[in-house]
Amino acid sequence: MKCRVCGQPASINLRSYKTALCDSDFLSFFEKRVKTTIEKYNLIAEGDRPIVAVSGGKDSLSLWHLLNKLGIACDGIYIDLGIERYSDTSLDKIKKSAEILKRKIYVFRIKSVFDCGIDGLAKAMRRMSCSACGMVKRYIMNRICLDKGYNVLVTGHNLDDEAAALFGNVLYWKKEYLWKKDIALEAKEGHLSKKVKPLFLCSERESAAYAIISNIDYVYDECPFSIKAKSITYKGMLNALEESSPGTKLMFVKGYLKTLKDVGGAGETVGEDVRETKYCTNCGYPSYTEKCIFCWTLEKYGIQNDVKFDEYGPYSIDSGQGVVQ
Amino acid sequence: MKCRVCGQPASINLRSYKTALCDSDFLSFFEKRVKTTIEKYNLIAEGDRPIVAVSGGKDSLSLWHLLNKLGIACDGIYIDLGIERYSDTSLDKIKKSAEILKRKIYVFRIKSVFDCGIDGLAKAMRRMSCSACGMVKRYIMNRICLDKGYNVLVTGHNLDDEAAALFGNVLYWKKEYLWKKDIALEAKEGHLSKKVKPLFLCSERESAAYAIISNIDYVYDECPFSIKAKSITYKGMLNALEESSPGTKLMFVKGYLKTLKDVGGAGETVGEDVRETKYCTNCGYPSYTEKCIFCWTLEKYGIQNDVKFDEYGPYSIDSGQGVVQ
Repeated sequence: MKCRVCGQPASINLRSYKTALCDSDFLSFFEKRVKTTIEKYNLIAEGDRPIVAVSGGKDSLSLWHLLNKLGIACDGIYIDLGIERYSDTSLDKIKKSAEILKRKIYVFRIKSVFDCGIDGLAKAMRRMSCSACGMVKRYIMNRICLDKGYNVLVTGHNLDDEAAALFGNVLYWKKEYLWKKDIALEAKEGHLSKKVKPLFLCSERESAAYAIISNIDYVYDECPFSIKAKSITYKGMLNALEESSPGTKLMFVKGYLKTLKDVGGAGETVGEDVRETKYCTNCGYPSYTEKCIFCWTLEKYGIQNDVKFDEYGPYSIDSGQGVVQ
Repeated sequence: MKCRVCGQPASINLRSYKTALCDSDFLSFFEKRVKTTIEKYNLIAEGDRPIVAVSGGKDSLSLWHLLNKLGIACDGIYIDLGIERYSDTSLDKIKKSAEILKRKIYVFRIKSVFDCGIDGLAKAMRRMSCSACGMVKRYIMNRICLDKGYNVLVTGHNLDDEAAALFGNVLYWKKEYLWKKDIALEAKEGHLSKKVKPLFLCSERESAAYAIISNIDYVYDECPFSIKAKSITYKGMLNALEESSPGTKLMFVKGYLKTLKDVGGAGETVGEDVRETKYCTNCGYPSYTEKCIFCWTLEKYGIQNDVKFDEYGPYSIDSGQGVVQ
């Protein structure tokens, strides 16, 4: 197979685009797609101060590199879930990227507040790990933005993540979630930062290829707690459908975005109102109850520890050493 | 496992209802569910003249028997697709049911108009067999109602059929179909008969159990042309999800019906208008083009044959012989 652009041997076959590309043309293709997505959906504008949520995986690290390469300077925030080896390895790789990019990385350590890792917290809360993790991430990522003056939170959710989540929402027609998912969610001044997903239309396979070709050192393993997640089942089914009908995932997600417009846009109430959004009386972040689940948990367990962020970088090119500011 | 009603050994475990029942209580349960569905969704009312579309399979024959048992007298219409052995076997079994029910069965033979079976017609039309079959069925079933004065067309579409079709519509967010599917579609006076699906919320497994326990002799084989149908893939995936989370199919379809109300109801245009419904200038049935695809096909191939229905029954109890009226 030959590269559609230069005619040299192709290294990746993109069946959903009916094209094949060599390494170098794939990088350009991928960068252009993300750039177009950012512009078309107004994800990041001139003068914005974005921060990328990095996990150490292919998606968020590819995105962090790519944005800085496109001239969109952005720092990173990492949440250390206290998962042995996995969390430390992830942070090591993130620090390497921060060094290459000469950007700052903030680290929030879950143990610094809860005195245990995500598994311990989940057990105490009698929740699944993924549910407890989501609770912590939503709070901390909003907090870093509001505390440190970043106005756009950029996450690495890819097409596969979005298609799987949408699949679950549509399977049970979850009104509370179904029409609330979007490629960008607008800020609520003083309460919530704008959230954007520039990889919304890029597959997992594409972001992995981008990381590999770009020599980005990322964590290959999935989070050990995600194995039982239903999203893994949904991803498997969507991959089977994609295999027999290339482009299915993209059509599923793009079709949803179009339908979302038809029904009134993300966050609009379709039909009867289910839950009213209020703000947590403690932190002021959006909440369906008087106190948000994060503040409620701290109170319930009598936790007095403050949320604080460790900062690494920006790194100097010469020394290659981290400078804690 | 014991029957939840009478405590005798159970013969069927209904995981989505968290219950198990014996043969006799299952029949009552199933009949009550269908009766409740008919009443709740106003499918068939006093004074209506319904006709059941029978294929010879478990769903439509179970439904035909059940409706007559509930006191809703109805005749049947069978479309002979000219598939060797399969079509003849189907008709034999349908005639047996007609005899038991003492009802009339109309038969339309595709060969009588097109001089070939469904596979030949599909080839000539360069369509998939399922697509050609749908075209013929839609036309003929509407025609029998309008010609013979039946005002409600009853079909045996079950939960699995509906869930699979919905799955395909939602996967590609097909605006032309997505919000048009419903448990009942209202008549358009003089153009289209009312269509209802009393088994909309009953699974394939339940209707098969009903047929078996009731000693209804039905065709076990699926239509030989359905093997490659995408709906089979979707059904397989939904069954896998149902296996790990019983009740998923029911929630998927019920959640859709609820969402349908939220967006304005079946047939309402959600968002930009896609296609305008007109009526065929030849037959007067709904059509998106000047002539409906059935009339257009007849014209294209210069077919002069009339659509006619063979009638069998009602059968006398004594003789057990068919009487062509």
